[in-house]
Amino acid sequence: MQPAALRILVTGGTFDKDYDELAGRLFFRETHLQEMLRLGRCRIPVAVETLMLIDSLDMTEEQRAQILDTCRRVPERRIVVTHGTDTMEQTARVVGAAQLDKTIVLTGAMVPYTFGSSDGMFNLGSAIAFAQALPAGTYVAMNGRCFAWDDVRKNRNTGVFEERV
Amino acid sequence: MQPAALRILVTGGTFDKDYDELAGRLFFRETHLQEMLRLGRCRIPVAVETLMLIDSLDMTEEQRAQILDTCRRVPERRIVVTHGTDTMEQTARVVGAAQLDKTIVLTGAMVPYTFGSSDGMFNLGSAIAFAQALPAGTYVAMNGRCFAWDDVRKNRNTGVFEERV
Amino acid sequence: MQPAALRILVTGGTFDKDYDELAGRLFFRETHLQEMLRLGRCRIPVAVETLMLIDSLDMTEEQRAQILDTCRRVPERRIVVTHGTDTMEQTARVVGAAQLDKTIVLTGAMVPYTFGSSDGMFNLGSAIAFAQALPAGTYVAMNGRCFAWDDVRKNRNTGVFEERV
Amino acid sequence: MQPAALRILVTGGTFDKDYDELAGRLFFRETHLQEMLRLGRCRIPVAVETLMLIDSLDMTEEQRAQILDTCRRVPERRIVVTHGTDTMEQTARVVGAAQLDKTIVLTGAMVPYTFGSSDGMFNLGSAIAFAQALPAGTYVAMNGRCFAWDDVRKNRNTGVFEERV
Repeated sequence: MQPAALRILVTGGTFDKDYDELAGRLFFRETHLQEMLRLGRCRIPVAVETLMLIDSLDMTEEQRAQILDTCRRVPERRIVVTHGTDTMEQTARVVGAAQLDKTIVLTGAMVPYTFGSSDGMFNLGSAIAFAQALPAGTYVAMNGRCFAWDDVRKNRNTGVFEERV
Repeated sequence: MQPAALRILVTGGTFDKDYDELAGRLFFRETHLQEMLRLGRCRIPVAVETLMLIDSLDMTEEQRAQILDTCRRVPERRIVVTHGTDTMEQTARVVGAAQLDKTIVLTGAMVPYTFGSSDGMFNLGSAIAFAQALPAGTYVAMNGRCFAWDDVRKNRNTGVFEERV
Repeated sequence: MQPAALRILVTGGTFDKDYDELAGRLFFRETHLQEMLRLGRCRIPVAVETLMLIDSLDMTEEQRAQILDTCRRVPERRIVVTHGTDTMEQTARVVGAAQLDKTIVLTGAMVPYTFGSSDGMFNLGSAIAFAQALPAGTYVAMNGRCFAWDDVRKNRNTGVFEERV
Repeated sequence: MQPAALRILVTGGTFDKDYDELAGRLFFRETHLQEMLRLGRCRIPVAVETLMLIDSLDMTEEQRAQILDTCRRVPERRIVVTHGTDTMEQTARVVGAAQLDKTIVLTGAMVPYTFGSSDGMFNLGSAIAFAQALPAGTYVAMNGRCFAWDDVRKNRNTGVFEERV
């Protein structure tokens, strides 16, 4: 069996947060990636693999190593990693420094997909496109832009991704 | 003044259809592109220009020529054209055959943006990404994929874009 | 078995219109009433019965008689009828003139439920409340208001329901 | 000037919670009541007054007294109070025990209005209807039902409102 055109590695983040109506707070139930791909009428062969469902502020170095290991291990050469925005740049540096011969695009969302006003679908569409079109390397796709893994940071005041100064 | 990073040419299509609650039917009011870019937290400099707001089944050869002329005239080298899906492949052939030294990506939606279940945000995100990442040429971005202008058609039975056989 | 607290008779109307993405037009697939009741966390025992799924401009006198007959036949004394807004007042007159000893509330929507901006959930909530709280009689619940069956009309210019002058 | 047909007193609760995309948590920005009334095409004269925007778990006895005082003071005889669900029954008892000669309906939502899957519009529609149709008294409108102020509780395990046993 040949590999899918693209693998999506799910790690959680705002992207996948749901509202727990009994507790009145946000939590992770399960990923919405399959639903989002269906809504986007996405027809490229995609393998979705959930590695973890966590807030990226809680991500450990072991978990970043696990993401890198998975990128190395899977047969696909084009990979999208969904990730919380708060530490996306850190995971990008771990994965990017390994210089794998694959195109790896990290993306996320500022607002949960389950909210009406989410940027999730837009970001997923752009990440999947960048993953197909760009040469090997590790990138961050946010705000309609694509950043190199070693030249990106989230501006905490504006919530916008930008180049490192 | 230097050109924006990207120009979006709006021609209408399902993308921009609204529901007319007095007449009980779909119609064009105005484009939703600016709202969609805001929702996607898009931060690349984008110039949005509305050429027409029509159903692509009603598009004339004069209007296709107008789209091509506009692609040629504008200063930006990266262009997204929003377009009805029914005749997107025809406009792609008109624009693509001109062999402009620009990256031009046509996209659209199967379901209006104003519907909850639209593929519009996903397609717009992917089109903007492909327009930035691909070399000069004319493409169709639908279903998470990117097709060359001379090798794409909409399958009328499934509503899915595919290569010409 | 005792009757449900409330019966909802579905006849179609804008309420239940879906977008046919292959044909690019609005159509009826199936009713969204069960989904709407679930979304509203409605916990009164409700029996949902689909009589027809039509645009109310196409409703015949035979079909209005069928609605009246069903209201008479069912065991529930509290009934909501979902209906297209264009001829809701006509059906209200047919049902109301029969002077059944039941509380019957017709309601509908100006925008399909499947659109993000629908008034459907609001109208359904108000109709279910009026059906429980009002004495026997036939009413139209639209725009947050409740009208007697013989003193209501839809203003074609504004799309708003009002008393007959 | 004669009073509006209905006054809505806003106190916050899940109803009005927004997502803070910089902090990644739920918070209160402003009430969505006017937007919800517009979406519901509500055409009864409504006066909206924001008393507070708080989580009902944080509501003090002074604030409950303020709600009661406001119900007494305003000229309208039909009042809807939007309220967090966690202590709605407590405020209902404070207001209800005062035996005002007005129809007062407390309502809320299990899921924020800004989420796609909110029960807010349904509940608001039902509360506005009950407030118009019921005799003087204090009520809780949730789950499509209407409860007397002294015979209602939120079941913490199911999130559903029910009679006190």
